[in-house]
Amino acid sequence: MAADIDEQPAGYARLLSADNAAEIARVAAVIAERRPRHVVFTARGTSDHAALYGAYLTEIRLGLPAGLASPSVVTLFGARPDLSDALVVGVSQSGGSPDLAEVLRAARASGALTLAVTNAPDSPLVDVAELSVDIAAGHERAVAATKTYTAELLALLMLVEGIRAGDGVLPATERKALDALPELAARTLTDGTPAQLAPRYRFARQLVTTGRGYAYPTAREAALKLMETSYLPALAFSGADLLHGPLAMTDPEVPVLALVGSGPGGRSMGEVLPRLGERRADVVVVGSADVPGATRLAVPEVDERYAPLLDILPLQRLALALALTRGEDPDAPRGLKKVTATM
Amino acid sequence: MAADIDEQPAGYARLLSADNAAEIARVAAVIAERRPRHVVFTARGTSDHAALYGAYLTEIRLGLPAGLASPSVVTLFGARPDLSDALVVGVSQSGGSPDLAEVLRAARASGALTLAVTNAPDSPLVDVAELSVDIAAGHERAVAATKTYTAELLALLMLVEGIRAGDGVLPATERKALDALPELAARTLTDGTPAQLAPRYRFARQLVTTGRGYAYPTAREAALKLMETSYLPALAFSGADLLHGPLAMTDPEVPVLALVGSGPGGRSMGEVLPRLGERRADVVVVGSADVPGATRLAVPEVDERYAPLLDILPLQRLALALALTRGEDPDAPRGLKKVTATM
Repeated sequence: MAADIDEQPAGYARLLSADNAAEIARVAAVIAERRPRHVVFTARGTSDHAALYGAYLTEIRLGLPAGLASPSVVTLFGARPDLSDALVVGVSQSGGSPDLAEVLRAARASGALTLAVTNAPDSPLVDVAELSVDIAAGHERAVAATKTYTAELLALLMLVEGIRAGDGVLPATERKALDALPELAARTLTDGTPAQLAPRYRFARQLVTTGRGYAYPTAREAALKLMETSYLPALAFSGADLLHGPLAMTDPEVPVLALVGSGPGGRSMGEVLPRLGERRADVVVVGSADVPGATRLAVPEVDERYAPLLDILPLQRLALALALTRGEDPDAPRGLKKVTATM
Repeated sequence: MAADIDEQPAGYARLLSADNAAEIARVAAVIAERRPRHVVFTARGTSDHAALYGAYLTEIRLGLPAGLASPSVVTLFGARPDLSDALVVGVSQSGGSPDLAEVLRAARASGALTLAVTNAPDSPLVDVAELSVDIAAGHERAVAATKTYTAELLALLMLVEGIRAGDGVLPATERKALDALPELAARTLTDGTPAQLAPRYRFARQLVTTGRGYAYPTAREAALKLMETSYLPALAFSGADLLHGPLAMTDPEVPVLALVGSGPGGRSMGEVLPRLGERRADVVVVGSADVPGATRLAVPEVDERYAPLLDILPLQRLALALALTRGEDPDAPRGLKKVTATM
């Protein structure tokens, strides 16, 4: 898991390299030309969080409605929604879960433009989809997905910005911002804070993660990593949803990891942090700026749109360090396999 | 809270009465005539779970793609997705959260057909929407929503079946199944098992709820009730997603409430229960049929589509009984107010 985590800056550089960028641009241009009216993502587990990021990007950057589909409506209930105006995107590191392939097959039969985003160009998901993007993350050794998650994020970002451009080719300013990511990611990974912070949660019985907008998928993914590797029940909430009920169960015994970026999503956490303070919650902030009174996992200052590619890195390292602190083996989470087949 | 819970059978009967049914039929007929190409739901907290049920119904019963919108893309990031082919449905007991009103206002400006489903006919959400449905649940005394939740479920069900019929008028068989619900709900509420079960969780430190398809919103809502009233951190997963990672954190110390209905969703839990057994999880089943080796909260046997209107009842009563067992006041959850305003 440590090796997978450390490979992420190189993974970003690889995906941004001429060949891979050209391939994504080609797919983006095809999608832009077909002009879907809305976008439906389908995914499971970690990839579901990348898909959620893709949905935010689609709505905010493309102005197209986007949502996440429940595979069960197709696979269990036999529904065949009319998706003739839609782009349907399956996101999966293995490309091997039968339910996602069935959703894409049904979508394609109903006239949807279908796209597989995977780390497995020879997978069933790629076979059934009209278009595919290879996230080129290389073999992932650990069961807990790390480098395939961030490669999915970057591939979806490049794709959406390529569609926005129309011809798939990223504008120079966008390209420049993306080209800075490998170095920023490498710098983020040198910070020693995650390992220092892990003992704080040695005896935690549960944990809450929270963020809004682009940061919400990061909150979800951080919670899943902590559950998978440290067996720490972790609840992820959008900052707004936290105030609509779950706030009641926070107290000094429930630590909170709060993503507080520098854009609209992060600023809106300004209504959440004081409420957590009233409940005397133990808050650690992930962000580029100090929050008075809170311990912080420092990340570089970037536009919130890029923050998910950096913010998750110290949280992956925290999950790894906490697993080791608790005497668990993060490379062999109990009860899990690398490819999960569900219908 | 106990009084609100007990009023649910009467609430079903009221919503099914001639006047209210006619009003929902009229709205359903307008929607059917306008033929939206897809449906977007927007909601927060408990109402978000009713919206999720609405999304399953929309996809399975109407064959229309449906999804849940993140209000933040509109309210924080200023996105204005083109929703001219969409029906956009805001679900809210109070109709008072500014973010939902802003999402509906923006959707209507982009050409969407907009609908407010609320318990407050004079609310801002109703003002901004083109159409509205009054769930007629009466004044809800407790902060934790119970009778407004199930009234939202029934209103959405009547609406979807009315759209499916085309003219808004429910077919006789559908009407007959719905007319049985008040009596079935009343019978479900007489069962003493929830109060007997509460002490089992007196010292639980967290809990997992799980279900698939129509039962997944019930799992989400049960988790929220337990967090709001008993301050028990509760994690809800679709049965499939549970296998894609979170399964690792289950062990004999993490109790599981599993919704196992008699239809496709419930049957698919057959791949989940053995995996929970391997992890020696403490499983209590909510369902109409015995599951060998598991304690059960009994509910009447109905088509899975109607089960969410009954399955949540013993779970609301469990949340209430557990709060009392833990010495908490379920009518005044710490840190919460009845109307939560978020942007």
